[in-house]
Amino acid sequence: MERVPILKIGDILLVSIQVDMSDQTAVQLQEDLAERIVATGCHGVIIDITALDIVDSFVGRMLSTIASISKVLDAETVVVGMRPAVAITLVELGLSLNGIRTALNVERGMELIAAAHADELAFDDEPDAETTALS
Amino acid sequence: MERVPILKIGDILLVSIQVDMSDQTAVQLQEDLAERIVATGCHGVIIDITALDIVDSFVGRMLSTIASISKVLDAETVVVGMRPAVAITLVELGLSLNGIRTALNVERGMELIAAAHADELAFDDEPDAETTALS
Repeated sequence: MERVPILKIGDILLVSIQVDMSDQTAVQLQEDLAERIVATGCHGVIIDITALDIVDSFVGRMLSTIASISKVLDAETVVVGMRPAVAITLVELGLSLNGIRTALNVERGMELIAAAHADELAFDDEPDAETTALS
Repeated sequence: MERVPILKIGDILLVSIQVDMSDQTAVQLQEDLAERIVATGCHGVIIDITALDIVDSFVGRMLSTIASISKVLDAETVVVGMRPAVAITLVELGLSLNGIRTALNVERGMELIAAAHADELAFDDEPDAETTALS
C-alpha cells in the first residue's frame, strides 16, 4: 500500500499529494497526520496539491476531514498549489472546501499559519475570564 | 505524464519523490529542477525519498545526475528520508551515491544547505588571488 509521506519543517507538517488517493490511502494519511500532529505538537498542516489534475468530491471530502481533524488537534490546515483548472472545476461541480484555507504556494501557506498562530497566542495572552476559569 | 512537483521554501527547492520514476519522468524532473534553480536563484535542493521502498541503480543515477546539474548551477543537493532498508540495499548492491549528501530529515537537510552556503559566502569574501584574477 502506498503511503503519503509527511515532512516536518519547523512548526509545520507538509504533505505533498502526488498519487491517486484510494479509500485506504486517504484513511492512512488521516491517521498518520493525526499521530504526527500529536507527536510533534505542530501548529500547521500544509497540503500541496500541485500534482493533482483533478480534485473530485472524494479528494475534497478527504481535505475537509483532514482540516477538521487538525482543527481539534489545534493545527491549522492550508491547501496550497491548486491549479487554475482545478479551482474552476471545483466551482463548476459546486464543491466548496469547507473549513479549508488556501494559499498560492508553500511559502504563503507558511505565512498564513504563522499569522494564525500568532493571533491565537495573542488571544491566549489576554486576561480572559472564561479561559482563566477553565484553566 | 506524471510530473513531480517542486516546492520552493525560502532558499531551498524541495522535491518529494513518491511515484515510480520512468525515464521520461526523470528527465522531466531534471529539466524542471534546472529551470527552477535558475529562475529562483535557490542555493539548495532537497530530495525526499521517504516514500521509496527501493532505490535501484536507475534512481541512484538520477539522483547523481540531479546533484551534478545542481552543482554547476551553484546549488547543493541533499537527499533526505532514506529508510534503513534502502541504505542497506544500496550498500549491498554496491551503489554509491556519488556527489550526493544525505541527511536524516528535511530539517537537517536545510541546516546542511544553510551551513554549506554560509561556508561558500565566507570563502567568497576572502581576498583570494585566484578568484580575484577570475572575476
